[in-house]
Amino acid sequence: MPMPLPTFDDVLAAAARIAPHAHATPVLRSRALDALAGCELHFKAEPLQRTGAFKFRGACNAVWALDDASAARGVVTHSSGNHGAALALAARTRGIACHVVVPEGANAAKLANIARYGAHLHTCAATIDAREATAARVQAATGATLIHPYTHPHVIAGQGTAALELLNGHGPLEVLVAPVGGGGLLAGTAIAAAATAPGCHVMGAEPEGAADTAVSLAAGERRIDFVPDTVCDGLRGTLGEPNFALLRAHQVEVVTVRDSGTLAAMRLIWECLKLLVEPSSAIALAAVLQQRERFAGQRVGIVLSGGNVDIDALPWGRAA
Amino acid sequence: MPMPLPTFDDVLAAAARIAPHAHATPVLRSRALDALAGCELHFKAEPLQRTGAFKFRGACNAVWALDDASAARGVVTHSSGNHGAALALAARTRGIACHVVVPEGANAAKLANIARYGAHLHTCAATIDAREATAARVQAATGATLIHPYTHPHVIAGQGTAALELLNGHGPLEVLVAPVGGGGLLAGTAIAAAATAPGCHVMGAEPEGAADTAVSLAAGERRIDFVPDTVCDGLRGTLGEPNFALLRAHQVEVVTVRDSGTLAAMRLIWECLKLLVEPSSAIALAAVLQQRERFAGQRVGIVLSGGNVDIDALPWGRAA
Repeated sequence: MPMPLPTFDDVLAAAARIAPHAHATPVLRSRALDALAGCELHFKAEPLQRTGAFKFRGACNAVWALDDASAARGVVTHSSGNHGAALALAARTRGIACHVVVPEGANAAKLANIARYGAHLHTCAATIDAREATAARVQAATGATLIHPYTHPHVIAGQGTAALELLNGHGPLEVLVAPVGGGGLLAGTAIAAAATAPGCHVMGAEPEGAADTAVSLAAGERRIDFVPDTVCDGLRGTLGEPNFALLRAHQVEVVTVRDSGTLAAMRLIWECLKLLVEPSSAIALAAVLQQRERFAGQRVGIVLSGGNVDIDALPWGRAA
Repeated sequence: MPMPLPTFDDVLAAAARIAPHAHATPVLRSRALDALAGCELHFKAEPLQRTGAFKFRGACNAVWALDDASAARGVVTHSSGNHGAALALAARTRGIACHVVVPEGANAAKLANIARYGAHLHTCAATIDAREATAARVQAATGATLIHPYTHPHVIAGQGTAALELLNGHGPLEVLVAPVGGGGLLAGTAIAAAATAPGCHVMGAEPEGAADTAVSLAAGERRIDFVPDTVCDGLRGTLGEPNFALLRAHQVEVVTVRDSGTLAAMRLIWECLKLLVEPSSAIALAAVLQQRERFAGQRVGIVLSGGNVDIDALPWGRAA
């Protein structure tokens, strides 16, 4: 049974629902980056969101939208990344249980982060079948509600609040760029922009090595059979069904970016904004820099999605 | 001829003078760091200041305090670090010439940064004599005003505006911690705190390998004959004469910190605040963490002084 697609009213409801728990993150500017890009850049700094990524917005909205009886049985998800940590903290803000299904061999630092927020970890084999079977088993045993990382309508609506804050506080913008993996952030961004800034062009930035969204939009149907090959570890997921429908409905454009461009943009952000961003965030600036002529002189919003980098595995640093 | 020591009125005048040019930087919080430190930490984020460090405050104040005739002849300093870049940009905001004397073999990236803001670079041998002779030659040839990196009264007053903003917007604070190298920031901080928050204890954090301030305060006289050995490249300078007098007058305490503690604190700030700070900034958090019992439950302000790290020479990153 597919859930209804979220609307702008859902984004507004999300904004009210998460306000007591989430940060209204700052918007950063840099004269040096503006000069380099030849346009006016407004960076929404989601690395400064709780848990270090925009993911807390959607998870928090989904948790607080539950009725009391459902909430009492807890929530469950499968994610060894930012969504797992975000759901764990969101559940903690409501005082309910959170179960996170993680594959064997997942990054120990990320698991420690999820556990730090008090979630129960359930390890399974590193296949989609094992993951879904384990999540179903947890659901059956506990009655917990499954909160999918990017297809759940409350998650999509929650992610849209970042763009809402950016457009309300720093608009008008002629372009708004966000990264796309599963499409939760980009779909939420498109909903928020369509309602508050109809003239604003929404653009997704996707790694060349995980370009299922660009391929799907070009083909007019969802094509998700691919093996990701990119440094953007947050963007390796496959485009969700409701996400695809929303991106089509809002005529969102998706451009693909090489990892080399993403890493160069990541370094620029570190140096000029002094903000730790992960590659999956920096890709949005890279998408603008590879089309300088097109955006010349425009006011461009960029959603920097998160800053959870592994400091021991940077693309630079300690000399070899 | 010694210049008069700056007062709180000078700090207030500086705040008004630099307001059109400098950022009122944000104050960052982290629940995770509060839990770790056992107190309430308020971080003044000077890496987000223009040129990436608090140094722009003092340089900007000194440049805009000049009368028109003096300003027209430009300014000169000797610094291959943050003050050089800060003075270059400050001079640019007033449209006047800036000369920076730099030693042979100085870091190329830092020199490029200074040159980027339009300063004239004058290279000299890497000795104090050569540096002072070259600066004197530039002064004689151009009539430029020498703006010393940390003893100039307008520089000290300007640096005090960071603490002023922190105390006015986020006080009351029971403790306020800042790093100390030459003592410009710490002396300015002490002046601002004494006037606006008399009950606030001001503490300097100094590397064990460059502990001239701690030694001087203990001895009751300035003792600056030492060879610095620390990763805190911004704190290798020697305590200035007016700085020493101000720290004594305000009974500022200075604690020394091992580089290992500073690097651990730097990593915590990167991970929890997502802010790039240099070791010379992180030392202030390290000073608090090494005295957890003493500050338990208190409201502690920390001036994070700057974020100009060399990304290719980090203490971590790419595996060897």
